Amino acid sequence: MADSPEQRAYAEELDAGDPLAPFRDRFELTDPHLIYLNGNSLGALPKATAKRIGQLVREEWGTALARSWEHWTALPRRAGDAVGVLLGAAPGQVVVGDSTTVNLYKLACAALGEFPGRNVIVTDDDNFPSDRYVLEGIAAKHGYELRMIRTDMNEGISAQAVREAVDSRTALVSLSHVSYRSGAIADMAGITRIAHDSGALILWDLCHSAGAVEAGLDAAGADLAVGCSYKYLDAGPGSPAFLYVAHALQDRLSQPIWGWFGQRDQFAMGPGYDPAPGIGQFLTGTPQIIGVASVEEGARLLAEAGVGRIREKGIRLTSYLVSLADAWLAPLGVSLASPRDPARRGSHVTLSHPQAQRIVQDLAKANVITDYRTPDRFRFGLAALTTRFTDVWDAIDRTRHILHDLSERDVAPPPATASA
Amino acid sequence: MADSPEQRAYAEELDAGDPLAPFRDRFELTDPHLIYLNGNSLGALPKATAKRIGQLVREEWGTALARSWEHWTALPRRAGDAVGVLLGAAPGQVVVGDSTTVNLYKLACAALGEFPGRNVIVTDDDNFPSDRYVLEGIAAKHGYELRMIRTDMNEGISAQAVREAVDSRTALVSLSHVSYRSGAIADMAGITRIAHDSGALILWDLCHSAGAVEAGLDAAGADLAVGCSYKYLDAGPGSPAFLYVAHALQDRLSQPIWGWFGQRDQFAMGPGYDPAPGIGQFLTGTPQIIGVASVEEGARLLAEAGVGRIREKGIRLTSYLVSLADAWLAPLGVSLASPRDPARRGSHVTLSHPQAQRIVQDLAKANVITDYRTPDRFRFGLAALTTRFTDVWDAIDRTRHILHDLSERDVAPPPATASA
Repeated sequence: MADSPEQRAYAEELDAGDPLAPFRDRFELTDPHLIYLNGNSLGALPKATAKRIGQLVREEWGTALARSWEHWTALPRRAGDAVGVLLGAAPGQVVVGDSTTVNLYKLACAALGEFPGRNVIVTDDDNFPSDRYVLEGIAAKHGYELRMIRTDMNEGISAQAVREAVDSRTALVSLSHVSYRSGAIADMAGITRIAHDSGALILWDLCHSAGAVEAGLDAAGADLAVGCSYKYLDAGPGSPAFLYVAHALQDRLSQPIWGWFGQRDQFAMGPGYDPAPGIGQFLTGTPQIIGVASVEEGARLLAEAGVGRIREKGIRLTSYLVSLADAWLAPLGVSLASPRDPARRGSHVTLSHPQAQRIVQDLAKANVITDYRTPDRFRFGLAALTTRFTDVWDAIDRTRHILHDLSERDVAPPPATASA
Repeated sequence: MADSPEQRAYAEELDAGDPLAPFRDRFELTDPHLIYLNGNSLGALPKATAKRIGQLVREEWGTALARSWEHWTALPRRAGDAVGVLLGAAPGQVVVGDSTTVNLYKLACAALGEFPGRNVIVTDDDNFPSDRYVLEGIAAKHGYELRMIRTDMNEGISAQAVREAVDSRTALVSLSHVSYRSGAIADMAGITRIAHDSGALILWDLCHSAGAVEAGLDAAGADLAVGCSYKYLDAGPGSPAFLYVAHALQDRLSQPIWGWFGQRDQFAMGPGYDPAPGIGQFLTGTPQIIGVASVEEGARLLAEAGVGRIREKGIRLTSYLVSLADAWLAPLGVSLASPRDPARRGSHVTLSHPQAQRIVQDLAKANVITDYRTPDRFRFGLAALTTRFTDVWDAIDRTRHILHDLSERDVAPPPATASA
C-alpha cells in the first residue's frame, strides 16, 4: 500500500480497485501518451459508436438508401428513451434532435406561451452563454423582462437566490443543473419546488450533468430540460441534443417551430399542422441520423456502466484531484474554483490562476488536454469511463511543474535583445 | 445506332456518350441490381464522403479530440461557400447548419421583423408540408395572416398567381423553387421581382433544386433561401441544411434564435448577445461536424461535375423518361404530373395513377426504388451523377409490366376462399 495519496502508487492502487476501469477499453483511445481531461467539452469515441457509424454509412445509407427510413424514423424517440434512463426520466419524455440552443429556444417559448399574464424570465448571470443569449433574444423580441440572478462563480446558484428572484410575474425559470464554469450542482428538486411555488415552469440545462451526475428529472418534478450529447454522452462533435418534456405538459404546451417531424400523420402531407401527441410534437425537421444513432450508442454504454457507479467514481476522481491541488498547487497560487463539497460538484474541477490560459497551453504541450475559461479558470473534466486516477495524478503533477517553470521565468531577467 | 428511343440499345448509346457517366464510379453503389431513382429523397453515398467520415470519426474525433475544434469552427462557413457555388451565390452568403425546418423558421422570423406594419405571409397550398407548417405556426403565434396561393399540382406556381396574391400588407413571400410533388420549377427571378415590387422579402426553399438545377440566387436578386443537403447534395440522412442571406440583408436582419455560434466573440463568453457580422449571426448552436463535412464533400463533387452539365443531363434524363412514359404508360392509364416543358421541370418526374402506392411497392420488389406521394403520384428522381439512361429505360419497362399485371389482376375473378 502506498503511504500517501501524493504517491503515484496510490493512484495506481485506486485504478486497480476501480470497478469501472474495464470500460476504458470500450473507447478508441489511440494515443497512449495523451491524458485527455476535456471530456466535458468533447467526450471520447466509443468503439461501438465508430462501428455503428461505419455500418450506418456503408450499409444503411450506402446500400439500403432511402429504404432505411422505415427504421430511422423511430430513432429520435428510441435514443431519447436511452438518454432518459440516465436522467431519471420514464420513457416517452425525451427525444433526440436539433442543438441544445434550438431546443432551449423551443422549450422556453413553449413554456412562456402558457402564461400570457406573466412577463418575467429568470436565469443567472453565470449560466452558459448560449442559454443567456437564447433567453435574451426571446425577451428582446417578445417584451419579456430577463431577470439575472447574480451567481457566485465558484459556488453556483443557491436555492435562496432563486427564491428571492421569482414572483407572481415569473413565467419561466431557466438554469443549468451543473455550471459549465465551476461544475457546481444546483439543487434541482429544491429549486424546481421554488419555481413551482411561484407558479412558473422550470427548464433545466443538463449539458454538464447528463451522463455524469444523477439528474432525477421525474423525481424532482422537473417540467422541461435540454442537454447536449457530445460531452459525457460521448456522441461526437456537434451530435444532436436531447430535450425532455414531462408527460403532464406534453399535450398542453405548444412549441414554436412547427415541422413535418412533429406532425401527427407525417406522410399524409396534410393541409394543416396537427401536432403529434406526446413528446413527438417537439421534433421539428429531419433528424440527423448518424448523430442520433451515436447518441443511442453513447447512452447505452453509460447505462451499462450505471449512473450510480459513474457518479460515485466521478466524486472520487474530483475529490482526488482537489486533494492533490490543495497539496501541490495551492502553495503555487492556484485556488479551487469549484465547490469543495463533493456532493455539490459535478464531474469537472475548475481551478483559478492569473496565468490560466498559459497553463492550459503548457499542459497541452505536456500531453494533458484541459481547457481555459474566462476570466482565469482552467477546467479538468473527469469522465468516469475513461479517466484514470493516474491520469489525475499525472495531470496535477505536470501542472505543478509548469507552475514552477512559470514562476521561475517570472523572476528571471528578460532575455537580452538579439543584436543584428 | 438503335432505331428507336424505345429500344434499350438506344439508352445504352446515350450512356456511352454521357460526359458525366464516369462520376457514377465516385459513389458507393454496392448493389448492381438496384435501380435507385429516389435520390430526390436521399442521395447516394459518395466514396469521398465515406472516407472523410471514417477519417473524421477515427482521427479528428477519436485521436485529436476537442483539439479539432481549432479547424472545425470554420467548417459551417466553408461548406456554405461550397454549396454557394452550386446556387449562384458569391462567398460569404451561405452557411451550413440546423435543419431546413429550423432555418425556414429563423429566416422567416428575421424577414418579418423588418416589417412591423405588414401582417401577411404568402405561400402556396402545394408547398412542402414543413414549409407550410412553419409559416402556419409563425402566423398563429404572432398574428400574421397566412395567404395560400392555390397551385396547380402538376404545373406548380405561376408568376401571375404570385402577383395576384401580394399587396402592400405582404411582408414575406415563401415558396419552393422546385415543387416536391411535381418537380415544377418556379420562375425565381420573375417572382422575386414581383415580391420586391410589393415591398416584401422573398424566402426560397431549394430542397429539390440544390445540386440539380441552377438556382442563380444572386442573379435573381433573391433575399433569403434555405435547403436540405440529403437529396441531390448527397450528404446523408438528416445531414444539416444550408441557409442563404444576401449580403445586403445580413447586418440588417435579426434572426430569433440567439446562440453562441452566432456570437461575435464566441469564447469571450460575454454577458450579452452581440451578433457576429455578416452571415455568422445566422448560426445558432454547435454545428453537427460529421454532417457539415459531408455537405462540403457532396458540394465539391457536384461542383467538379459542374452545375451546367448536371442541369443539362437532368433535362435529358427527365425528357427521356417522359417520352417512354408517353409511349408505354399513357395507354395503361398513367398521366404525367410534372410540367411537359423540360425548362420548367426539375430533376424528378412525377406520374399519376390511381394505384400509385401499389405501383411503388411492386417496383421496389422489382429492384426499382421510387416513392409515392399523395394523392396518386409516384416520383422518379433522376440524379445526374448516378442515374443512367438505361436505369430510366429499365424502370419504365418494369413499370409497364407491373401495370399489365395489375390490370390483369383487376379483371381476374377473386381467388376462391380456401376451405378448411
